[in-house]
Amino acid sequence: MKTKVVLHTVGQILLIEAGLLLIPTVVGFIYHEQASVRAFLITAAITAAAGALLSLVKTGKSSIYAREGFAITGLSWIMLSFFGCLPFVISRQIPGFIDAFFETVSGFTTTGSSILTDIESLDNAMLFWRSFTHWVGGMGILVFSMIIIPLGGKRSMYILRAEAPGPASAKLVPKMRDTAAILYGIYFAMSAALLILLLAGGMPLFDCFINVFGTAGTGGFSNHSASIGHYDSEYFEVVISIFMLLFGVNFNLYYLIFLKRFRAAIKSEEFHWYLGIVAFAVITIAININSLYGSLHQAVRHSFFSVSSIITTTGFGTMDFDQWPEYSRTLLVLLMFIGACAGSTGGGLKVSRVMLLLRTAKRSMRRMIHSRSVESIRFEGRIVEEETLNTCLIYLTIYCLVTVASIVLVSLNNFPFEVNVTAVVACINNIGPGLGMVGPAGNFASFSGASKLVLAFDMLAGRLELFPVLFLFSVRTWRR
Amino acid sequence: MKTKVVLHTVGQILLIEAGLLLIPTVVGFIYHEQASVRAFLITAAITAAAGALLSLVKTGKSSIYAREGFAITGLSWIMLSFFGCLPFVISRQIPGFIDAFFETVSGFTTTGSSILTDIESLDNAMLFWRSFTHWVGGMGILVFSMIIIPLGGKRSMYILRAEAPGPASAKLVPKMRDTAAILYGIYFAMSAALLILLLAGGMPLFDCFINVFGTAGTGGFSNHSASIGHYDSEYFEVVISIFMLLFGVNFNLYYLIFLKRFRAAIKSEEFHWYLGIVAFAVITIAININSLYGSLHQAVRHSFFSVSSIITTTGFGTMDFDQWPEYSRTLLVLLMFIGACAGSTGGGLKVSRVMLLLRTAKRSMRRMIHSRSVESIRFEGRIVEEETLNTCLIYLTIYCLVTVASIVLVSLNNFPFEVNVTAVVACINNIGPGLGMVGPAGNFASFSGASKLVLAFDMLAGRLELFPVLFLFSVRTWRR
Repeated sequence: MKTKVVLHTVGQILLIEAGLLLIPTVVGFIYHEQASVRAFLITAAITAAAGALLSLVKTGKSSIYAREGFAITGLSWIMLSFFGCLPFVISRQIPGFIDAFFETVSGFTTTGSSILTDIESLDNAMLFWRSFTHWVGGMGILVFSMIIIPLGGKRSMYILRAEAPGPASAKLVPKMRDTAAILYGIYFAMSAALLILLLAGGMPLFDCFINVFGTAGTGGFSNHSASIGHYDSEYFEVVISIFMLLFGVNFNLYYLIFLKRFRAAIKSEEFHWYLGIVAFAVITIAININSLYGSLHQAVRHSFFSVSSIITTTGFGTMDFDQWPEYSRTLLVLLMFIGACAGSTGGGLKVSRVMLLLRTAKRSMRRMIHSRSVESIRFEGRIVEEETLNTCLIYLTIYCLVTVASIVLVSLNNFPFEVNVTAVVACINNIGPGLGMVGPAGNFASFSGASKLVLAFDMLAGRLELFPVLFLFSVRTWRR
Repeated sequence: MKTKVVLHTVGQILLIEAGLLLIPTVVGFIYHEQASVRAFLITAAITAAAGALLSLVKTGKSSIYAREGFAITGLSWIMLSFFGCLPFVISRQIPGFIDAFFETVSGFTTTGSSILTDIESLDNAMLFWRSFTHWVGGMGILVFSMIIIPLGGKRSMYILRAEAPGPASAKLVPKMRDTAAILYGIYFAMSAALLILLLAGGMPLFDCFINVFGTAGTGGFSNHSASIGHYDSEYFEVVISIFMLLFGVNFNLYYLIFLKRFRAAIKSEEFHWYLGIVAFAVITIAININSLYGSLHQAVRHSFFSVSSIITTTGFGTMDFDQWPEYSRTLLVLLMFIGACAGSTGGGLKVSRVMLLLRTAKRSMRRMIHSRSVESIRFEGRIVEEETLNTCLIYLTIYCLVTVASIVLVSLNNFPFEVNVTAVVACINNIGPGLGMVGPAGNFASFSGASKLVLAFDMLAGRLELFPVLFLFSVRTWRR
């Protein structure tokens, strides 16, 4: 492990964060929130100092390989959250450090789980920063999944198309900046389009920013306790639903469209499955909740919003789906596991990974019958290497182990089974709300500090495809 | 697929079942239960006729390979349950066919989930038969896991020690009978020992049989609603706990002891882990429930019984663990997944499989760091082949898929999330009780017919290591 490169890079990322902290400072000025302005300025200074100190580490001419990429990613997310939570603590708007850390991890990981019991009581500058972390986290995850993960090669946990914009060699340097610039351009343009559509519908500018951040990062923090339900507007719901789904699409598709390769973009298998799953869920849930809302129109409206919100792992709410019949609740929990497409800002297992798991399972069934059949699995028109499939299986295994262990640890709070299970599921898949006490109308405030740390760990592990985070916590990584 | 051999063999198994049906007939005679006697005799006649008809199928000199072995196993369990449930229907003691089928599948798969709301109202002959299916199912599963599964070779789902008594070649014929005879001898001897210990403690003879059947098969059907709690006797609880644990041990160990290879037996890694998990669970649960029972002695007593009952997938109850604090309930659900040792009468994922999954996950973490390390995984002192590891991973994947799909289907009943989840978990792992409505004090009566069939499918799939059952339901199997 080239520890120096890792520290140096993390230092530079902290310098960027120090710069980003000035944006909510401006918001604080506008709203005359002096305590918040002070908190942001102090934090920016501390973060800049820490960043500068780490940037002093001499690196020489080191290349970054997968190992360093993972260490940088894991460490960055933790450090960003550590420094990013200080404004809440300093201003005492979220006085407890663990609470503030949980909230900020939830922001940067684009989860959207909250410990706040009264969102409206926070300063605008704080609400802005809280949601802004979603937007920054969403950008970060695109770079991570498109550029860092492919460095891992066949053993990497990610399934990307061969047209992936990431570099083919194991070195990061030249192509990375171009790719990142294009990804950011797309991300910016889509965010701007959403902002305009919301403004056109008459949403206050501040709320527009909050909801754009929450949608683009598939995060889900809102500045209202009732979330999107606050506006009670079908227009906003439809616009946000569609944009949640768009941000849940593999950004390679947009990259292909950018390259004018429309046919390749439209042929994506993962995209078809993604739409198919959404359609199936919207229809069956609408049927299941039809009697609750009187008209099929209303049932479809609420079903479409909740399905989009959950499968993209955003977690915005309009209706409290916790009150829906059990089939709808359970199917939504299943969608939490599936998640959005690979290479999007969404979390979960990812549609492509679920597809590969299904195909591998199916093949092994066939092999039971024709034991000598040598059959390859195809995905997006290409043969998938056996090592990639194996890595998918291992991913699921580790994912199950982390989930189960977390549920047991969280159960020590003595909350109901449903709460423990769905709290962990909502965090590791970066959704936000679960069922029961942690449902759309609830929050994570009542968990113990230890449980909040476990859940923060789950958010990080889920967001960074398990490995970089587990890697950081492994003794071996740091031994020499 | 050699369909003729399959049908012929299933026919012979039905002839055996017809013979076995005469045993509860005798019980009915003793207790003067004429309606039951009639029902058993009619069923025996029907089963004998069906068995004889199938046995007429000419087979020639066909060898049985893995494929036929799986088909025979899957089909046998279904047919045994189909004919085995007829006495309940004919006597109208369980008038609904689906209910009777569920109960009998639960018996033969040694699950112990029940749809009965008033167990004590059944005839003794019926109660005897219901529990006897556990004992027969336990014997069947030993032969299945020791003889049929190893035919599948590296791709088989089972992890058996190299000393496995099963034949090394792909053909069943000669060694099989010897092995089966030895396994049955051990099973018989252990059952007899338990019977004597229970009798010595003053348990009525009829109850002794019921509890021996439930313990040996790790099934868990009782003739009292309060299960083992009915006796309120620490002696019975300790004896039954120990025997549950003994029947959850890999029968290879007993085979080794039979061969006087004590040192090899005692060195089993799986056995050590099994004991370690039991010890950990007993201690932490005892601490967790200590305040409920006043004394540590009572807490350990109840913890030991419930842990033994759940990890061995028996499902006997003394205390209603559904009323315990959430940590204990959740840990018990976790134990349901782990299950007993491979090659025992217990269900679940099996300790050895969980170990291999953990080791594979750990290795892939190490590989992230030293990407060129070629490292083998060892188990029981030997290197495990990569294909075996891969099969373990696929097993977990299919297991997750079946579990999740079943939970969604069962959720259509609109029972609470906890009930749906634990009902499926309890069935696929062959435990018996879950939490809430299906907890130790509850039953499965309220589920719809469709859900009962889903749960019956889960019991069969879990019991037969997924593949034989999925195999039967695959179109490809029967195409030519």
